[in-house]
This record gives sequence, structure tokens and C-alpha cells, in this order.
Amino acid sequence: MRLVTVPDPAWVDRLHAMGAVGGLTVRHWDLSAEPPDSGIGFVVPMMGHPERFPRLATLPRLEVVQVVTAGFDHVLSHLPPGVTLCNAAGVHDAATAEFAVALVLASLRGIPEFVAAQQRAAWVPLRTWPALAGRRVLVVGYGRIGHAVAARLAPFEVRLTAVARGARGGDGIVDRVHGVDELPGLLPEQDVVVLLTPLAESTRGLVDAAFLAALPDGALVVNVARGAVVDTDALLAETASGRLRAALDVHAVEPLPTAHALWRTPGVLVTPHVGGAGDTFEPRMLALLHEQLTRYAAGAPLLNVVRAGH
Amino acid sequence: MRLVTVPDPAWVDRLHAMGAVGGLTVRHWDLSAEPPDSGIGFVVPMMGHPERFPRLATLPRLEVVQVVTAGFDHVLSHLPPGVTLCNAAGVHDAATAEFAVALVLASLRGIPEFVAAQQRAAWVPLRTWPALAGRRVLVVGYGRIGHAVAARLAPFEVRLTAVARGARGGDGIVDRVHGVDELPGLLPEQDVVVLLTPLAESTRGLVDAAFLAALPDGALVVNVARGAVVDTDALLAETASGRLRAALDVHAVEPLPTAHALWRTPGVLVTPHVGGAGDTFEPRMLALLHEQLTRYAAGAPLLNVVRAGH
Repeated sequence: MRLVTVPDPAWVDRLHAMGAVGGLTVRHWDLSAEPPDSGIGFVVPMMGHPERFPRLATLPRLEVVQVVTAGFDHVLSHLPPGVTLCNAAGVHDAATAEFAVALVLASLRGIPEFVAAQQRAAWVPLRTWPALAGRRVLVVGYGRIGHAVAARLAPFEVRLTAVARGARGGDGIVDRVHGVDELPGLLPEQDVVVLLTPLAESTRGLVDAAFLAALPDGALVVNVARGAVVDTDALLAETASGRLRAALDVHAVEPLPTAHALWRTPGVLVTPHVGGAGDTFEPRMLALLHEQLTRYAAGAPLLNVVRAGH
Repeated sequence: MRLVTVPDPAWVDRLHAMGAVGGLTVRHWDLSAEPPDSGIGFVVPMMGHPERFPRLATLPRLEVVQVVTAGFDHVLSHLPPGVTLCNAAGVHDAATAEFAVALVLASLRGIPEFVAAQQRAAWVPLRTWPALAGRRVLVVGYGRIGHAVAARLAPFEVRLTAVARGARGGDGIVDRVHGVDELPGLLPEQDVVVLLTPLAESTRGLVDAAFLAALPDGALVVNVARGAVVDTDALLAETASGRLRAALDVHAVEPLPTAHALWRTPGVLVTPHVGGAGDTFEPRMLALLHEQLTRYAAGAPLLNVVRAGH
């Protein structure tokens, strides 16, 4: 009987309700304490809490770690040798993509200003705010979520440009996908930049002082990727001056420390890493997990393998 | 030489820069003082300020009033007999449609909560917020802007339903358009209702206690139409109880009085009638105005006539 752990006690019953998975026992474990059994073969860690990951190394029979996020950079250094790592690609696409659009629209159209005015019961006098219509939007990182963002932005009368690691042909949304090496020529022509790259050595600090300096005055930088993709000090300098604006869901240190200047920079909207935190998460994650466990029990190839074991 | 007045002094030069309109003189007048000339034939009033409209009756040679809004209910009672009224249909479509989507996404995904937390430099603990994906959205009022809203919502994995005055066939976005008489059967199946109807006797108070009571718990009502389409007291009762939520850009009295309970009702986002206030307004309004003046000078039929003169 192979043992599987899931981070939410309610998931044990929900997975059973989705149909039996032969030969597996599912138990609750969120890695906050020592493992309940040394025979655990398949672990689903909780979202966040990377400080708990060292406990993975204490499991002698561990075969698979299935994270509940699309990103997996935070697990790699704790993954014991020979253990397969699967991510939750697809589970968060819709929630994250719509949150990216929410940040773009809210920032451009003044929602933070209206929320603050509402607290004072104050009617903001009529002027105009930047519309999304007519604007040029660059999506940096054109995987599943980047495509989902572009698909949602397409009807807003925008001019979309997509950048991925390497140039390739287009899809139904963009005519072509530019390579990251083309960024210097593309940045001066953008009004909105949405960051959706995975965090890797090639993308760490990608949005540095030179990247930001190449953007035109008033451009909006939206980060729903990983905090470390952006050089925070460089972004702070460009937003504190009022030259650029930003909407940041991810941060180099999370939670963002109370003393951090980003919280108080005009033109910067800070959200607490909730891009994937739509209520679509649980049903979609459980559907993926049930499929993975069915495959695991049968010895069939797993989905979403991002680091193969042995 | 026929006289035209525009509400923004900069528009005089901009219209000239777009090409001469033979036989017309364009001057600045925002109706805040007595008219600068008794020979004015074509007036473009400023947005808002309906208290200035009685001055229209003092113009003996007035032929055309061109408003800068899609709505025109606020002008009708001040329109002198025989004067043609044109609205700005189309000018605000993109800005208003994207603002409606901004209100939907911001309300569902917790943006007001994050803005308030940012003021305290507080990191909201992770939970889930309602995603737009998977939700059922009803668009009430399926004219140009209603269609523009539906087109923008379509890629968000929603189930869209459209209601107009009379039932009719669908378009590329919805299979069919339901008649307003079908509302009672449709309302219990909606998660989000976006109001986009013009204000007319048939739509005044359309969203009353019975309409709201038919919506399921947790539904979100978004009003970017006119305040009087909603029975504010009924909406206050349903939101103050926490049963429904709302995002309201238009209000029965504007500016919304400081003492009004709507400002302070949890789950209600109040914005100051800025749906059309995107920076797309000016270029699109000037393009329409230049076309109208060209037609007016030539005696050709005007666009967007909503009340014919003689």
C-alpha cells in the first residue's frame, strides 16, 4: 500500500469522492511537523512555506513531489536525488491570467484612487484616466499563462506583442513570438508590460535598470511572474520618480516587509501574491491530482513532469 | 457664417488642425455664462452640469445639440422645440466596456481589499477570491456597449447571457439575445449582472427589490448604465446584509452625497461616474465632431441623431 499525502485534510475525502485510486492510501500532511509515516511515496506540499521543504529529504521512499503551483523554482534545491517533480501547469492559468488583466485595468483606470476616495466618501472630480484601448501591450513570457493573458487582452483594442525565450511563429492571437534578445528594440514601443516568465537564471533580474529605462514615460509594469524577475531597486527608482507605474503581485521577499518602500510609492499597486488564488484553484487542482494518482497507482507516466526522477 | 460652440477651448484649434470646415466658425462656450453670440447654431455642451442646459433655450438660431455622452436623458427636457439632438454613441464604447470589465475583475478578485491593505503596508493572508473563470455573467442592455462588454468578457471562460428590450438572434458572442420579459427566469442563474441599459421609463427602477431577490447569494451587480436604473434602497438592503455585492459607477444623485450609506457598505465599490473617462475620449470625440461639422456645413444628414428637429 503506497502512501500519498495532501496538504488539506478536506482533499482526502474529495479525492475519494472522485473515484477510488487502487492501491493508494491518501493522508493529510502539510509538512509543518514530522512526516506521519516513513513509507510516503507521493507528497503534495502546501502552497508557500518553502522553509518546510527540507522535510522532504527525510522520506526514504519518496518518489514524487507534486507542487500546487506552476512555478517550481522554490522546490528544486530541496528535491532529493531521484525524486520526480511535477508542477500544476494549467491549474492556475485562468485565475492568474484574469488577475493580470485585473491589475492592468485597475491600474490604468484609477481603481486604487477610487478605493481610497471611497474611504473618505469623496467624489473624485472628472478627468480622464489612461484607457487600455489603443495601448501597446507586451507579454514577456509566452507560455500557457502568457497565451491566456494575451487571449483575454485581445478584444480590448490593444496592439499585442509577445516575447518568449526563443522567437517562433505566432498563434491565433499574435502574428509571431519574438525572442528575448529582441527586447531592446521592442521596449520603447510599449505602454504596458506584463511579466509572466518562469524564474530561471536567464530571467533573474531580467527587468533591470536598462530594461526599465528603455520603456517610455508613463509605461505600466505588471509582474505576476516571480519577484526576482525584477530588480526591485531599479523599479523603485523609476516609480518613485513618477516616470513609470507598476502593479506587482510577486515580490523578491514575501510577505513584502512592512518597511518596504514599495508599499508607499505612488503609482505602485501591491497585491499579496494572489494571482493564482481564484476559487477555480481547488476543483482544477483536485482534477489534476486525481489524474496523477491514477497514473501513479498504475505506474503510468505522470503529467507535468518538470524534473524527472529515475 | 454659422456659429458652432465647443466646451473645451483646445478643441477649437484641434478641429481646425483636422481640416477646415467651410462656412463654420468654431468658438469656445461651456454654457457656464451667457452665450457669446446670439447666432449660435450648433452647441456641444460640456459633460455633466445639466443645470446649465436652460441656456440652450436662449439661442434663437439653435439647430443642433451634440452631446459628448452616449446617454442623453439629461438633455431631453431642456431641448428647445425643433432642435436636433445627437449623442456620442460609439465614442465611449471601448472606455466604458473596459471599465465595466475592470469593475467586475476588481470586485471579484479583491482589489479594493488589497488597496486598503496596501495603505497599512499589510500583507493579506492567502485565501481564495472568486474567479471570473467559470462564472455566469448576464449583460442587461445589449446595445453597442453591451456587445463590447460581452466581446471583452468572452475569453474569460464565462457563460454569457444577454438581455435587451426584445428577444432577437445572437451574434458572434451570444447564441441569442433574450427579451427583458425573460429576466425572472434568468436571474437565479447568474453570478454577475452588468447593467448597460439606457435610462428610459421602461428601465427606471428595473433593478428593484424583486430583481435583486431573484439573484443567488453572493452575486455581483455592476452598474455602468444610469443610477436610476437601480432602486438604491433595495440594493443597499441586499448589500448591507452581505447577501449581494455591487460595483457602481453611476448613482441616482451625482456626485453621490458624502452622507450616503453606499460609500460605507462592505462589498460595494463606488466609482465617480468615470466609465467613459478614458483618454480615448478626446480623439474619438473630436473625430466624430469633425465629421458632424462637415455634414452640418454641407447640409448633409448628421450621425447619431437621437431626436430629430425639423
